[in-house]
Amino acid sequence: MSKLFWDDLEAGQVYQLGSQSLSEDDIIAFGERYDPQPFHVDPEAAARTIYGAVIASGWQTACVFMRLFVDGLLSRAAAMGSPGLDELRWLKPVRPGDRLEARVEVLETRPSRSKLDRGLARLRCVVADGSGDEVMTFVANVLFQKRETG
Amino acid sequence: MSKLFWDDLEAGQVYQLGSQSLSEDDIIAFGERYDPQPFHVDPEAAARTIYGAVIASGWQTACVFMRLFVDGLLSRAAAMGSPGLDELRWLKPVRPGDRLEARVEVLETRPSRSKLDRGLARLRCVVADGSGDEVMTFVANVLFQKRETG
Repeated sequence: MSKLFWDDLEAGQVYQLGSQSLSEDDIIAFGERYDPQPFHVDPEAAARTIYGAVIASGWQTACVFMRLFVDGLLSRAAAMGSPGLDELRWLKPVRPGDRLEARVEVLETRPSRSKLDRGLARLRCVVADGSGDEVMTFVANVLFQKRETG
Repeated sequence: MSKLFWDDLEAGQVYQLGSQSLSEDDIIAFGERYDPQPFHVDPEAAARTIYGAVIASGWQTACVFMRLFVDGLLSRAAAMGSPGLDELRWLKPVRPGDRLEARVEVLETRPSRSKLDRGLARLRCVVADGSGDEVMTFVANVLFQKRETG
């Protein structure tokens, strides 16, 4: 598979990045380390919340997206890091066993103003569940090397 | 310590949330699970990048913030979840042993338009390193219960 450069990205493209699911143990282990709110780490306490059972930390959903993004795109791209992201929204609780499907939609590309060897892409990043509902979305800014530099 | 409600939050308040640091092992373990780019997981490969050594995944920095936010504020607050966040920026690489200090600045509060029992707070969330430089910032929207409901 040939390497992906900034020049290869175009608004409107969609990259499917594969899927992953989280077990209850995965969710609790992550919660105990990074987000120990009762509904992420304690099945009995979670049963008494509006969620009714343990749900994943929203940050873990973001981390699962990142893993699928690395495996499905960044590992074969000439990426040069990300200054950040905008408009992150958690839209629906993620439960153990939910099939989390990640994709990236290219919104816009533009050359860097200051550096001739790279360009920026604005990417709409989506995690959807098995029923097709979006559970998390955000818009990331990612830098990619140009194929022909300056 | 008395429980924190929406009524207790005011624009201009700053909550210091404590600090934590990541070992190289912590950074590599997180990277192997969620962000296996060479500069997060492979010290030899990282030495050949512009970073010169292993740096933490930006998502791990966000997760460390979340842990400090839960321990330092949410665990004693009547919080009701977060619909999302805006303007997340990764400003400086995080290296093993960096002292990561988290704080929250209250930007704005307003009552919920649709539900009388709660209000929203816009919080500027910051992770700074031992030299005081901000390494990550974002603006979160968080729902809190009102002390006197309706």
